[in-house]
Amino acid sequence: MAGSYSIINGQFFKTSEANILITDLAVQRGYGIFDFFVTVNNQPVFLDDHLDRFYNSASIMRLEPVPNRVELKRLIYKLIEKNEIPNSGIRITLTGGYSTDGYSIATPNLLITQNPFTYNIDSFEKGINLVTYNYQRQLPQVKTIDYLQAIYLQPFIKENKADDVLYHNEGEIRECPRGNFFIVTKDEEVITPTKDILAGVTRKKVLSFSDFNAKEASIKLEDIDNVAEAFVTSTTKFVLPVFSIDGKLIGNGRPGKITTKLFYKLFGIRMANYQVL
Amino acid sequence: MAGSYSIINGQFFKTSEANILITDLAVQRGYGIFDFFVTVNNQPVFLDDHLDRFYNSASIMRLEPVPNRVELKRLIYKLIEKNEIPNSGIRITLTGGYSTDGYSIATPNLLITQNPFTYNIDSFEKGINLVTYNYQRQLPQVKTIDYLQAIYLQPFIKENKADDVLYHNEGEIRECPRGNFFIVTKDEEVITPTKDILAGVTRKKVLSFSDFNAKEASIKLEDIDNVAEAFVTSTTKFVLPVFSIDGKLIGNGRPGKITTKLFYKLFGIRMANYQVL
Repeated sequence: MAGSYSIINGQFFKTSEANILITDLAVQRGYGIFDFFVTVNNQPVFLDDHLDRFYNSASIMRLEPVPNRVELKRLIYKLIEKNEIPNSGIRITLTGGYSTDGYSIATPNLLITQNPFTYNIDSFEKGINLVTYNYQRQLPQVKTIDYLQAIYLQPFIKENKADDVLYHNEGEIRECPRGNFFIVTKDEEVITPTKDILAGVTRKKVLSFSDFNAKEASIKLEDIDNVAEAFVTSTTKFVLPVFSIDGKLIGNGRPGKITTKLFYKLFGIRMANYQVL
Repeated sequence: MAGSYSIINGQFFKTSEANILITDLAVQRGYGIFDFFVTVNNQPVFLDDHLDRFYNSASIMRLEPVPNRVELKRLIYKLIEKNEIPNSGIRITLTGGYSTDGYSIATPNLLITQNPFTYNIDSFEKGINLVTYNYQRQLPQVKTIDYLQAIYLQPFIKENKADDVLYHNEGEIRECPRGNFFIVTKDEEVITPTKDILAGVTRKKVLSFSDFNAKEASIKLEDIDNVAEAFVTSTTKFVLPVFSIDGKLIGNGRPGKITTKLFYKLFGIRMANYQVL
């Protein structure tokens, strides 16, 4: 169930009537960017990190003008107030706009939508199983709306009895379609790929924790054979243990020690605003 | 100027009011396919070839249901009748639909739009200059709405004083973002890349002309140094001579002999319905 209201270019619309013209470059040419964050008890989590990335994506894709940060935050808080969904996910999308020739970038359309989202701690215990696939996301540093390959691969993931796909580029591990990938070595080093990936906000937080030995480095497919633990990070997944990759068990197929520690550390920070009613 | 009317899911809308909900998977995830053909004096050109490809793209991307061919043609002819634009381009787009979770494919939205288009023979004389770029289109055999890279590269094309980009994959020439690439050897062989490209309708026609020595084969970047002629084909470009690639002249930088012959042959077929008023 979507929130009752959405915002298009600063104006509120009932979500059931929130629409854009079909001449928009997102519809015509898949051209657009977005960002996504959650709210806990009506408080956006890591909002400035997400807005930093949002403005960076917009700039790289030459989408302008965009409301400034003060104005954008004002809109976000108004939507939170109006929809009354304390625990939610909020998506800000910026499209290529109503292009007159169907190819040139026009004035972007800014769409803000909100949906209920509450993290379920069961998903940590359940973990995920990954299947690898040779694919390099285009413009990987930008959070574009391009998920063609990820959606196309859904039957492949199912056939391989996996929950999600792990992209690699000719053997160099990259990321999941909607999450960053990490390994934990037997020496308790926490490593995430450094190149041609999206700079996730949760990934950034994990790398910043000084009480963990976390770093960016190249990870190859064959490195997986020797890891102690593996996990995926994202705004909705938090720190999600990987139990198997291509059918091979990681560690003992349970949440590992470092993964669990990292999870609870992040969980504490992220849920700080949560109130038991 | 767009045609006054567009069709969404079988219904006519004023183009200025033709819209879709922002929950559509095209807007959320860039997920959709399309096809594009022209009309000459109200007659669609190579319509069945385009519909063959359209249904094939839809099937590969698991977009269903789609109206059957009889129904789709009926809609197209009704739009032609209503808009009264004898010489036009018609685009049929099929989107991922209103996804409830923002990721799963839903019932597709079918959009049909029409814009004036008349081929200007001057563009043949003007030719184009290309700049090469290392990029492999994802799902190349499908006419998806993904033109992220092509639009992103517009400033690169301009900086290199070119008119369009020619993609290659690690030195293996592929295609232009909106057209197929051909070379003509000094032995008058007409060659177009065979692998990981979109099967263009004009490309198919050129390959079918028995009075030309045309075939599919691998073309490498270094092969360009020895070609006699080069050209690009598409529904709007017909047969368009390439005058230079990466600043290096092709032939004498004028439309070549075989290119010109091919152009007039195709022009004759395509404009058969054109009537001088």
